[in-house]
Amino acid sequence: MNRRMVLYTVGTVIKIEALLMLLPTICALIYKEACVKDFLISIAACLICGFALTIISRPGNKVIYAREGFVIVAISWLALSAFGALPFFISGEIPSYIDAFFETVSGFTTTGASILTDVESMSKGLLFWRSFTHWVGGMGVLVFMMAIVPSLSDRTIHILRAEVPGPIVGKIVPRMKQTTRILYVIYMALTVLMFLFLLVGDMPLFDALVHALGTAGTGGFGIKADSMASYSPYLQWVVTIFMLLFGINFNLYYLLLIKKFKPVFKSGEMWFYLGIVALSTAGITMNIMPIYESFGTSLRHAAFQVSTIITTTGFATDDFNQWPGFSKTILLLLMFIGGCAGSTAGGFKVSRVVILLKNIKRELKKMLHPRSVDVVRFEGKRLDEATISSVNSYLAIYALFFCAIVLLLGLEPFDFETNISAAASCFNNIGPAFGAAGPASSYAMYSPFSKFVLSLAMLFGRLEIYPLILTLSPSTWVKK
Amino acid sequence: MNRRMVLYTVGTVIKIEALLMLLPTICALIYKEACVKDFLISIAACLICGFALTIISRPGNKVIYAREGFVIVAISWLALSAFGALPFFISGEIPSYIDAFFETVSGFTTTGASILTDVESMSKGLLFWRSFTHWVGGMGVLVFMMAIVPSLSDRTIHILRAEVPGPIVGKIVPRMKQTTRILYVIYMALTVLMFLFLLVGDMPLFDALVHALGTAGTGGFGIKADSMASYSPYLQWVVTIFMLLFGINFNLYYLLLIKKFKPVFKSGEMWFYLGIVALSTAGITMNIMPIYESFGTSLRHAAFQVSTIITTTGFATDDFNQWPGFSKTILLLLMFIGGCAGSTAGGFKVSRVVILLKNIKRELKKMLHPRSVDVVRFEGKRLDEATISSVNSYLAIYALFFCAIVLLLGLEPFDFETNISAAASCFNNIGPAFGAAGPASSYAMYSPFSKFVLSLAMLFGRLEIYPLILTLSPSTWVKK
Repeated sequence: MNRRMVLYTVGTVIKIEALLMLLPTICALIYKEACVKDFLISIAACLICGFALTIISRPGNKVIYAREGFVIVAISWLALSAFGALPFFISGEIPSYIDAFFETVSGFTTTGASILTDVESMSKGLLFWRSFTHWVGGMGVLVFMMAIVPSLSDRTIHILRAEVPGPIVGKIVPRMKQTTRILYVIYMALTVLMFLFLLVGDMPLFDALVHALGTAGTGGFGIKADSMASYSPYLQWVVTIFMLLFGINFNLYYLLLIKKFKPVFKSGEMWFYLGIVALSTAGITMNIMPIYESFGTSLRHAAFQVSTIITTTGFATDDFNQWPGFSKTILLLLMFIGGCAGSTAGGFKVSRVVILLKNIKRELKKMLHPRSVDVVRFEGKRLDEATISSVNSYLAIYALFFCAIVLLLGLEPFDFETNISAAASCFNNIGPAFGAAGPASSYAMYSPFSKFVLSLAMLFGRLEIYPLILTLSPSTWVKK
Repeated sequence: MNRRMVLYTVGTVIKIEALLMLLPTICALIYKEACVKDFLISIAACLICGFALTIISRPGNKVIYAREGFVIVAISWLALSAFGALPFFISGEIPSYIDAFFETVSGFTTTGASILTDVESMSKGLLFWRSFTHWVGGMGVLVFMMAIVPSLSDRTIHILRAEVPGPIVGKIVPRMKQTTRILYVIYMALTVLMFLFLLVGDMPLFDALVHALGTAGTGGFGIKADSMASYSPYLQWVVTIFMLLFGINFNLYYLLLIKKFKPVFKSGEMWFYLGIVALSTAGITMNIMPIYESFGTSLRHAAFQVSTIITTTGFATDDFNQWPGFSKTILLLLMFIGGCAGSTAGGFKVSRVVILLKNIKRELKKMLHPRSVDVVRFEGKRLDEATISSVNSYLAIYALFFCAIVLLLGLEPFDFETNISAAASCFNNIGPAFGAAGPASSYAMYSPFSKFVLSLAMLFGRLEIYPLILTLSPSTWVKK
């Protein structure tokens, strides 16, 4: 374990966080809010700790391997959340540190689950910071670092592998730094485009900014008690469409840019994702028609809620906790699918679902013809057995962690509906759940212990379990 | 596809069912009940259809392969349930055929989920038949057939593989018929032993018989409205211990009989199973102490309920639906584990859980040391990659089916707690669930459509998905 390199990178990440906090500080300055000084104190804290770490640990040997990659990502995300919580805590707007930590983890992991009971009373600077953490966490903080900091090492692929979700992490172009820059440029361009579409729909500037950041990261923090219910149908449709766009593998956008249309239109993952969205929307639209009495309104609400859940964003246009059981069941199941790999969406990932289904099909064939040998193909390429096996193992460890979270939440006095959906929602980085944690309420009623459990659930979900579990495992730290 | 051989075997199974129905007929005769004639009509129906099938299809070629094995098992179980429902339906004691079918499927699959709202008013003959189906289904009908009918073919291993649950099906002794006979002798001996223990505790003869049959098959049909709540603590402990015994791999009992103690005491599956039982019992005992105010009573209820759920039996000594959330959460999670492979218990199976955990451990190691090559060992033997892969695929298809059942039940006006636990309970062949389908109520409130879905869920669960799905797949029926 190259401990110096781990500390050095974590220090760099904290310094970058100080830099990122400048934006909400400017926002607070514009609105002449008192939280400016809280941001400045937080920035100072980040800079002191960041520089302390990088100065102490300046590494001679910059070589890192897979395990350093996992540890760097796990510790960086914990540090980001711990420091990111400072402005909320110091300002006193979130008086409990564990609540501030929950809110910040929820931001960076793009979950959007909130402990705030009165979001509209928050200062603009803090609201901006909350939504900005979504945007930063969506594409990945270390990806961002690699895009802007002069190369730390030529082995950053290990860090990327640990931070970017999905079963297969590839480079778009041969050079790593180039890849991360392309990803961030696409990300920024789409965010700006959405911002403009929102402004066209007469959304106030601040609202448009916050919602563009929250949608791009598929986060879901809103600034109103009723989330997006009071915005116009046009604005709701814009958000629906951009949520879906941000849930698609960004590699496809790059392929479109370089005019390689064929692989895009043959993307099995994308079609499967759009197919599920279409089917679920159709099912829910029919199911909720008696409530809204209009096809258009039902379709809008259904499409919005399906998109917000499958892309793991978590906005709401209505209290879907009041919908009939069939619609709620569809939404609950969608929580476990998530968006496409290589997007900003969380969850289990569509690509994994597709690979599992293809493997089941192969297994059935093998049962009939035990000696047959089949290969599984995905996105035009043959999958090697190691990838299939790792997707299978991921399902097992994912199920195991989900059960553990549900078990720990079982200590709370809430019903199965609340606890199971809260576990699913946080672990898959969605936000609102059902029952007592529905879109019309918050996670404020959970005990500090459960808030800590759910914070960890969000981090485990966002980082896809392995980085954190390997960091906690003693064998990772043993010298070779 | 050797269709003649499929029909011939199914016909034989139906004839055996006629034979099995003689026992409840005798029971009804002893109690001088009117249902004697309903049993005789049902026996006649079985004999006519059974002989018609075997005479029409007498096969020249007795060779079967894997796919015939799956199809034989799937159709046999459907036929058994369809004919087994006749006495309930003809007698008018269960007036709706779909209800009678549900009850019979629940019997043969050893689920124990009931649509009866007043079980104590049923005639003794039908109550005996209900519990006897548990005993027959527990070890497997085709296993029974192979034990008693002169060899149908030397390839019956394909049938055994399709009917006996668990990831690895081995023969105890080289000859198949010998293996099935040994299993049935152990099964009968344990049942008789339990029966005697119950009689010693002053349980009435009929009650003892029915509970011995229901426990041996890990079924769970009782004959009282409060299941086992009104029996003495001694009787409840006897049932607890025998439920646990019937949840252990029967191969271990054979090893004990031939004095091979070492592999028994080194059985990882058995220790894991007993460890989960001990941990869950401890957790629930502490959690329910405030209700029962006595350590002894709490321990008894906790141990009973943990055993009844993990072995997928489904008796109850109290309405555990009223227990605190933590205890209910533990029980819900236990539903998904099930008993050991090669026992009469249903569920996902402990051996699969153990294999998944070992594979996760290997995967974590591989992440740290990508070039390491490890083998997974289970019960002292090296597991081949095909077995690990098939266990992984089983988890995926199991999760897929569970989601599908939950989705279909979502059409009902019940809450998540009821639907999710009902799906888990039926799919894992347990019986009682939570909420509106808790141990103090029944499945009577579900619509005929949902009863059919749950009947299929029980069959899919008992036969471990593949036989039924392959029978429904057109490619199985295509000529080679």
